[in-house]
Amino acid sequence: MGRVTQRRRITTIEPGGTTRTRIDSLVVEEPLEIRLNGEPWAVTMRTPGHDIELVHGFLLSEGIITSAEDIRTARYCEGSVMSDETGTDVNTYNVLSLALAPGVAMPEPRRSTVATSSCGVCGQASIDTIRTRSPWPLPADRTPVDPALLAVLPERLRQAQRQFAATGGLHASGIFSTDGELLVAREDVGRHNAADKAIGWAMLRDRLPLHDAVLVLSGRTSFELIQKAMVAGIPTVVAISAPSSLAVELAEDAGMTLTGFVREGRMNVYSGAEHLH
Amino acid sequence: MGRVTQRRRITTIEPGGTTRTRIDSLVVEEPLEIRLNGEPWAVTMRTPGHDIELVHGFLLSEGIITSAEDIRTARYCEGSVMSDETGTDVNTYNVLSLALAPGVAMPEPRRSTVATSSCGVCGQASIDTIRTRSPWPLPADRTPVDPALLAVLPERLRQAQRQFAATGGLHASGIFSTDGELLVAREDVGRHNAADKAIGWAMLRDRLPLHDAVLVLSGRTSFELIQKAMVAGIPTVVAISAPSSLAVELAEDAGMTLTGFVREGRMNVYSGAEHLH
Repeated sequence: MGRVTQRRRITTIEPGGTTRTRIDSLVVEEPLEIRLNGEPWAVTMRTPGHDIELVHGFLLSEGIITSAEDIRTARYCEGSVMSDETGTDVNTYNVLSLALAPGVAMPEPRRSTVATSSCGVCGQASIDTIRTRSPWPLPADRTPVDPALLAVLPERLRQAQRQFAATGGLHASGIFSTDGELLVAREDVGRHNAADKAIGWAMLRDRLPLHDAVLVLSGRTSFELIQKAMVAGIPTVVAISAPSSLAVELAEDAGMTLTGFVREGRMNVYSGAEHLH
Repeated sequence: MGRVTQRRRITTIEPGGTTRTRIDSLVVEEPLEIRLNGEPWAVTMRTPGHDIELVHGFLLSEGIITSAEDIRTARYCEGSVMSDETGTDVNTYNVLSLALAPGVAMPEPRRSTVATSSCGVCGQASIDTIRTRSPWPLPADRTPVDPALLAVLPERLRQAQRQFAATGGLHASGIFSTDGELLVAREDVGRHNAADKAIGWAMLRDRLPLHDAVLVLSGRTSFELIQKAMVAGIPTVVAISAPSSLAVELAEDAGMTLTGFVREGRMNVYSGAEHLH
């Protein structure tokens, strides 16, 4: 996975006008074309790595699959480019072909669709169909979570992030147990992809629904990110920054505990405060 | 435009465990359904306001239109909800119906597509078709820009942002003249929407191509944001945070000057340093 960052010569300009060149690390953004049963279905801009997890989480969010068994095979194909070094074709690893298991309905064709790096759900036609139904409603009688535990999770996620310091351009999602143990952390140029990768990781280990887990987000919380938590059965979301109005509405409807601005021991609780103790 | 922020009662938790409730402002995120010639074409999550500008910028990015004349009419329709207060239907202003001018080709149908709040380009099927051709290639012999001028633009954009301080959840895009004059600033929960609104503003005033303008972005720079600048003919992009690898590659291919981490008089120049003096 040497493709998460790319080294590149840049020019820096200092306040006095001093100019120099140095080597900088950039976060890699590349398109991933997803084919379902041989048909092009979506292109998402993403940071390469954990692509299999990414497509599992993405297809779960889209309501197409609910378990890892719903995807029979996943393999990279085509998308080759000419190598400058060897003069031969090399695989770009940017085209992933999935065969759905028998009985899994093919979704609507997605001609003319790019799901961009920050765009996870990209998948319905009109407003009425935006909401995905969760296969696992959240348990209302779940064990309360200690807010003091939630307060330390963003820092734990940050410690698990290896790339951010190098590029300043990666979002992270982490899934923690309700004891505060990090189960998985994933990074991506797109925050929705980072969540899809983390949730896909859990799905591939048959750990859904994640009723005893906390999703920690390195940035802001959109409607879509709440939807991703919801369809994975995650009852608690901790975010470092602000949620949108629709994120709060969906979290409340789903019975989810949604926090934001979780920094230095402080936090805002936007919904589900009754599940904290 | 009272729908940019929403007031809501939240619970705050302090480090010692002290809990209180207060009224907080959230940035509003709502879906906008775009219909072309009567057909549902895309749904984008956005912050309401400047929707007409948004769709102009969005359709330009998608390569569907190149001038404001390409859209004959744009009007809100349907999407009514029952008002709690009056018991009657009220327009949600979340469905915008556009009639394309004669001779403007209808794009491919976009069934099964939500362009999310951070997702602007959402519009092609496979990797080969991601790149939009610009109607206005950038002039190679353009007047050099003073980096000291670029360095102050992020702060000017911030001063123009009215909502950010209230919610912490809005991205901004500003278009400045090469003299540093702010022409337009737009905010949105999605950074691609903010750019679409600003560029759409210019399009509606017949100011494209923006060869003498600078696009200033409040966050990171993705491939798509560079593409939006490119199709608007903007030669210089200033961003407060990091670009992705593909953003830099596209900027270089287009002959664009791309800067990042423009903070406190410092900046990184990722491409087109020869156009600074």
